[in-house]
Amino acid sequence: MSDDKDDLYAVADFCLIPMGTGDSSVAEYIAECQTVLQKSGLTFKMHGYGTNLEGPWNEVCKAIHDCHAAVHQLGAPRVATDIRIGTRTDRQVVLGEGNNRKVHRVEEILARKEAELR
Amino acid sequence: MSDDKDDLYAVADFCLIPMGTGDSSVAEYIAECQTVLQKSGLTFKMHGYGTNLEGPWNEVCKAIHDCHAAVHQLGAPRVATDIRIGTRTDRQVVLGEGNNRKVHRVEEILARKEAELR
Amino acid sequence: MSDDKDDLYAVADFCLIPMGTGDSSVAEYIAECQTVLQKSGLTFKMHGYGTNLEGPWNEVCKAIHDCHAAVHQLGAPRVATDIRIGTRTDRQVVLGEGNNRKVHRVEEILARKEAELR
Amino acid sequence: MSDDKDDLYAVADFCLIPMGTGDSSVAEYIAECQTVLQKSGLTFKMHGYGTNLEGPWNEVCKAIHDCHAAVHQLGAPRVATDIRIGTRTDRQVVLGEGNNRKVHRVEEILARKEAELR
Repeated sequence: MSDDKDDLYAVADFCLIPMGTGDSSVAEYIAECQTVLQKSGLTFKMHGYGTNLEGPWNEVCKAIHDCHAAVHQLGAPRVATDIRIGTRTDRQVVLGEGNNRKVHRVEEILARKEAELR
Repeated sequence: MSDDKDDLYAVADFCLIPMGTGDSSVAEYIAECQTVLQKSGLTFKMHGYGTNLEGPWNEVCKAIHDCHAAVHQLGAPRVATDIRIGTRTDRQVVLGEGNNRKVHRVEEILARKEAELR
Repeated sequence: MSDDKDDLYAVADFCLIPMGTGDSSVAEYIAECQTVLQKSGLTFKMHGYGTNLEGPWNEVCKAIHDCHAAVHQLGAPRVATDIRIGTRTDRQVVLGEGNNRKVHRVEEILARKEAELR
Repeated sequence: MSDDKDDLYAVADFCLIPMGTGDSSVAEYIAECQTVLQKSGLTFKMHGYGTNLEGPWNEVCKAIHDCHAAVHQLGAPRVATDIRIGTRTDRQVVLGEGNNRKVHRVEEILARKEAELR
């Protein structure tokens, strides 16, 4: 775990792409990343175009680094990743619940609006 | 629907950020986007750091454009979006199933590996 | 040019990645994209990790679509792109100058601060 | 500098967005980030929709973290960043030249093609 008290809590999402593999399928590589994330101890959840991930900034970055290393190990000579990463100081993020809470707040608003229309 | 036969089928994901609102919460704006997407008729699914979206390239872009327009309408003077968008010519994507199938293929591999370890 | 009066002006940047090519180099594909952009008539400028691009939303999206089509044509079975795209209603963007002006404003601030320190 | 021999060399680009500031202009915040990057000792270069940045993975991530911290310090309650980050094992990247070389290779191809057309 992070030993840096000044490390911001990061709510993130990333989409990793193996390059130069000669194979248009990436599922084996992404499965390997899920295994790396499992070992990281961080909260994560795969979706159709990436994986939600959150934790101390440093650990989130290290986990994605380790995904790159694992995908290189599997034979990809080059790896490119798009990361979306957010931090906030206006409120305390409930650990492991940053991404979930964002979805819930939107769903609550949609449910309220739907109720108003009835 | 698209009238352009040459339009590639796009499997995408986007994360929209309202800027200059003076409010650190974005849930009201994202809820509005979900309503816009609902009207687009495209397949979409919100997650913790964006929304999966797929369909003909042109319609996907138009839907995201309309989200920007709606968020401006709600009062955001500036809007910035990150889009991940993919196309492929090696296989026919089952319409509306592009993002789901990607998740399923990874889950199948993980299940197979777990079974092998038992 | 765009025939849609309601089309927002988009200041964008994109990074296209050919997948499944068996070649870790992407320069040939990116060069092809620059040629596509040249034909689009839009303002664009390549940098180390993508290409700045701006114009009416619809045309920006069409230009990136055409880059995908050209890269498929060159032999890439799959193409994934990350797009950053922004719109604003608080001020009129000088056409073709959206990205440049952003850089200039930052450089002005840095020059002012440096002058203050002397 | 990095003390981790296993740290991959990262060629990256990032676009940071301050949220909830009530100001649609971001130039002051981006100028602050340039100052943070200057202190990092890493190679970086601003463009119209982000900043190229490269170095050991860990240092690149720390520099972007420190930009978030600085932007929070300036008053932004929330910060969201899009990072593109790439690593490769097929060739040694010339330190500080990863992003430049990518541009040069594309420019060489374009110059060659133009020469062939004459």
